[in-house]
Amino acid sequence: MPLPPRPGAGPARRFRLPRSRALRYVVLGSAVGLTAAVATGPARSVAGPAPVNVEQAAATQLLQRPLGTAFGQRSQAEADLGDGTTLAAWELKDGVKEFHLTAAPLTWETEPGRTKQALAFNGRLPGPVIRVNQGDKVRIVVKNDMPKPTAVHWHGMELPNDQDGVPMLTQPDIEPGQSFTYEWTAVSTGTHWYHSHEDGDQEGRGLYGALEVVPTLGDIPAERDFRIMTGDGALGFVFNAKSYPATTSLAAKVGERVHIRLIGTGPEMFHAIHIHGGYFTVVAQDGRPLAVPQQMDTLTVGVGQTYDLIWVPVRPGKWMIHCHVFSHSEVSMGMTGMVTIADVHPATVPLPGIPGVTESQPHN
Amino acid sequence: MPLPPRPGAGPARRFRLPRSRALRYVVLGSAVGLTAAVATGPARSVAGPAPVNVEQAAATQLLQRPLGTAFGQRSQAEADLGDGTTLAAWELKDGVKEFHLTAAPLTWETEPGRTKQALAFNGRLPGPVIRVNQGDKVRIVVKNDMPKPTAVHWHGMELPNDQDGVPMLTQPDIEPGQSFTYEWTAVSTGTHWYHSHEDGDQEGRGLYGALEVVPTLGDIPAERDFRIMTGDGALGFVFNAKSYPATTSLAAKVGERVHIRLIGTGPEMFHAIHIHGGYFTVVAQDGRPLAVPQQMDTLTVGVGQTYDLIWVPVRPGKWMIHCHVFSHSEVSMGMTGMVTIADVHPATVPLPGIPGVTESQPHN
Amino acid sequence: MPLPPRPGAGPARRFRLPRSRALRYVVLGSAVGLTAAVATGPARSVAGPAPVNVEQAAATQLLQRPLGTAFGQRSQAEADLGDGTTLAAWELKDGVKEFHLTAAPLTWETEPGRTKQALAFNGRLPGPVIRVNQGDKVRIVVKNDMPKPTAVHWHGMELPNDQDGVPMLTQPDIEPGQSFTYEWTAVSTGTHWYHSHEDGDQEGRGLYGALEVVPTLGDIPAERDFRIMTGDGALGFVFNAKSYPATTSLAAKVGERVHIRLIGTGPEMFHAIHIHGGYFTVVAQDGRPLAVPQQMDTLTVGVGQTYDLIWVPVRPGKWMIHCHVFSHSEVSMGMTGMVTIADVHPATVPLPGIPGVTESQPHN
Repeated sequence: MPLPPRPGAGPARRFRLPRSRALRYVVLGSAVGLTAAVATGPARSVAGPAPVNVEQAAATQLLQRPLGTAFGQRSQAEADLGDGTTLAAWELKDGVKEFHLTAAPLTWETEPGRTKQALAFNGRLPGPVIRVNQGDKVRIVVKNDMPKPTAVHWHGMELPNDQDGVPMLTQPDIEPGQSFTYEWTAVSTGTHWYHSHEDGDQEGRGLYGALEVVPTLGDIPAERDFRIMTGDGALGFVFNAKSYPATTSLAAKVGERVHIRLIGTGPEMFHAIHIHGGYFTVVAQDGRPLAVPQQMDTLTVGVGQTYDLIWVPVRPGKWMIHCHVFSHSEVSMGMTGMVTIADVHPATVPLPGIPGVTESQPHN
Repeated sequence: MPLPPRPGAGPARRFRLPRSRALRYVVLGSAVGLTAAVATGPARSVAGPAPVNVEQAAATQLLQRPLGTAFGQRSQAEADLGDGTTLAAWELKDGVKEFHLTAAPLTWETEPGRTKQALAFNGRLPGPVIRVNQGDKVRIVVKNDMPKPTAVHWHGMELPNDQDGVPMLTQPDIEPGQSFTYEWTAVSTGTHWYHSHEDGDQEGRGLYGALEVVPTLGDIPAERDFRIMTGDGALGFVFNAKSYPATTSLAAKVGERVHIRLIGTGPEMFHAIHIHGGYFTVVAQDGRPLAVPQQMDTLTVGVGQTYDLIWVPVRPGKWMIHCHVFSHSEVSMGMTGMVTIADVHPATVPLPGIPGVTESQPHN
Repeated sequence: MPLPPRPGAGPARRFRLPRSRALRYVVLGSAVGLTAAVATGPARSVAGPAPVNVEQAAATQLLQRPLGTAFGQRSQAEADLGDGTTLAAWELKDGVKEFHLTAAPLTWETEPGRTKQALAFNGRLPGPVIRVNQGDKVRIVVKNDMPKPTAVHWHGMELPNDQDGVPMLTQPDIEPGQSFTYEWTAVSTGTHWYHSHEDGDQEGRGLYGALEVVPTLGDIPAERDFRIMTGDGALGFVFNAKSYPATTSLAAKVGERVHIRLIGTGPEMFHAIHIHGGYFTVVAQDGRPLAVPQQMDTLTVGVGQTYDLIWVPVRPGKWMIHCHVFSHSEVSMGMTGMVTIADVHPATVPLPGIPGVTESQPHN
């Protein structure tokens, strides 16, 4: 079984597709396959976590990679990322990747039967995942279709002060009905996020999303690439804006490197995220690689912080991922809120054994 | 004075007893001495921290080490660990270390005159310390003598999914009057814990305990081995289920390596644990050694996290160890709650001086 | 642009002044310039952050360095440190640096129009910054001019047990009208703090201050040296005892190393401190250098913890520094509470460019 990777070391090119195959995926992604996946959406179950087709999910994982302008890609359609989030669409205009985010009220079901008054970018909760490459020139047109003013902060980005998105300090409010266009070059690599900087109520109702800048030398190598965005505001205790059992299960196989981008969106609380059944390795914080990655099984994430975890499941089964603050994930009626399930399937290739593990390790 | 150890480096064998001496301790521990210590219990004082016989405590520390099957040990009696916790008893059956945990209601005094409705494994709060060696096969028979269902999670363990202890996901509830037998091999080394995964109320009332897996190459070297399990649920603000001044003082001598296993049991809060009078070194997190141990004097522990600290006291005296969140440890009437005292006695062997310290350092 | 420093490495002597110049600064500081600065105080604005004269602030930064007895300095006058805090005065007596702290009630304006019943050392909130050199013998005479008893703890110091400042454990209370004299040698280097150990109410009303011990080999190299002490008690959500917009802006230039000493004074909460526009590097925790400094943009500080950050701003502008827990810094009416502004001016010397940054980087 491969060891968890150290950032900057190891087979960064391992997941590079040959040009022809990459282009084919891009075509599929932008034209047919991914759009369909988004339109349909995964089936949900009231009685437990959503069932997952692990092979289909693996394909989705590959498709989700925006290989960017180096391959001549001119646009990206929305795509289901397999974790309850959606890749943002963009179009190349004069060498700039242009995104559009429209903030508007939305009635949102955090779980079957529990409806909240949310705010959403493009009708998505969380907002679409903005994923660009290091060095990309980025333009984001933010339109305010809400009755109150807003502004959007690009958390962790190095950018000109007037693009920082702090209302009344670096820019005027974006008034209802108006738009504001942000432009900056993607300098800060890694996992970041964006959010309304108007106040905690807007942010807590859903005006946030992941902001991922892929380094020129390649992303953190992984077979799976998931997001978990914690939320503790007006939507209740949620992962990616959903409460268990409506959270999207994360599908993987034994021995795969599972990359989890953990983002503490708040608006108010600290969370202690625990994965059952073993350890994960923290490889980056706020997008910056750790010189010394650290193993643990429970990680405290504060409001505004991001962490990149690599988890290599060693046993098949349904493993809980949850906030360990008990009231955020367990009540007397059972599991709720900040819980998702890692649905780990047996490996489909032979894996070298681990002492104490091999006897119960099914190898198909 | 010895430097704080780096895990995996240095004199791991330093504390190995010669075989004859080890066996003698085991016999003493399982037959006479330790049982008596548990039955009597340390004296408590209403007016201040409990007095400590530091020489007696040192002996207890040596006796507590479960030297395991390598020395032909067939069973272990309960033993007072000198920190307010109790080593769990076990018996070797067909090569498996078998533990029994019975969960039942208990009326518990967190401090003189303050009584709580608790839940306890084997009548102990915290539950008995399960201490095994890496590679041990472990069986734990959990009996539910409570009026509500339960299940026990082995936090941090690599184990088969159906032994993970999550009710309604990996196993059915253990109904009142019923038992469930968990079996797994101890793979994950270091300091971990176990707890009811039914809900935060059960856990907060006392259904938790330390779970320690001694690495084959030896434990973190230390002259003292203590646990501090934070609690902030129905029992109030407690260390090892007791409020100050009823917490057990931790006895040590100047220059000794004091190993503190800090475990955040919650169920709800983060704590900032501060030791007065100098620094400690964090050497492991969730049982995983830190490649780069870090010195500090205040450590945030989240719900579900464990940390291993090495503290070498350099001055005799009564040094506070407490949560630095003021309402958890100090009220207008004085110290309360999450406070214990490190009762540091002068060194009994000559120690090389420390600049600025030697003049006030008594060497006996 | 210089890289963030690693503690213990690099040009520690870079900021040493030649003896003649140093003495001149000391004379200026103790006699005329600094006292005047304190008496006047920076102008405040209701409508936004306070305006800053960045050149004047730079001079203040140099003047603030207490070069100590090595240069024959016999005394230190109070001095404005440019961040809303004040350097403590001292006088050398028989080779001991003697400080005086008088605790008394004070009516304090956290922002224009918002008045609180505070407690203050020497009429300052936070208390004066006690700054000494490693190896200094220190005497602090604490006088209690409050109607309730008190005692002062020197957090992080290695000192004799009876100088530790825990009432009823290491000393009797300092009763109203009485004094207590603490004496210890400065062994623990780096950023620490002192505070009332009587209870969280005294501490939360303002009885705390920074305690900085400059290592013999030199302080963390930086062009700017600021403190941010978080507060969340009876004074509301404050930085250095002030709420935005009354917080003191922190002035710097592009390319300078800005040293921020972050101290979590509580009394109750954890905070996630975020700096806009890029990364900072954490170089020390509780005064202890990190062997592996870590970059991030948001740092969780617990009650009682200190962190030393080095931030090198790369763009001019007004950059927010704030707690990312939304209710601590943003309400529907705009920014409030735990917010300050880094007022970054263009560089006045040519700087090598940064990819993606140079095009918008004014070089004067």
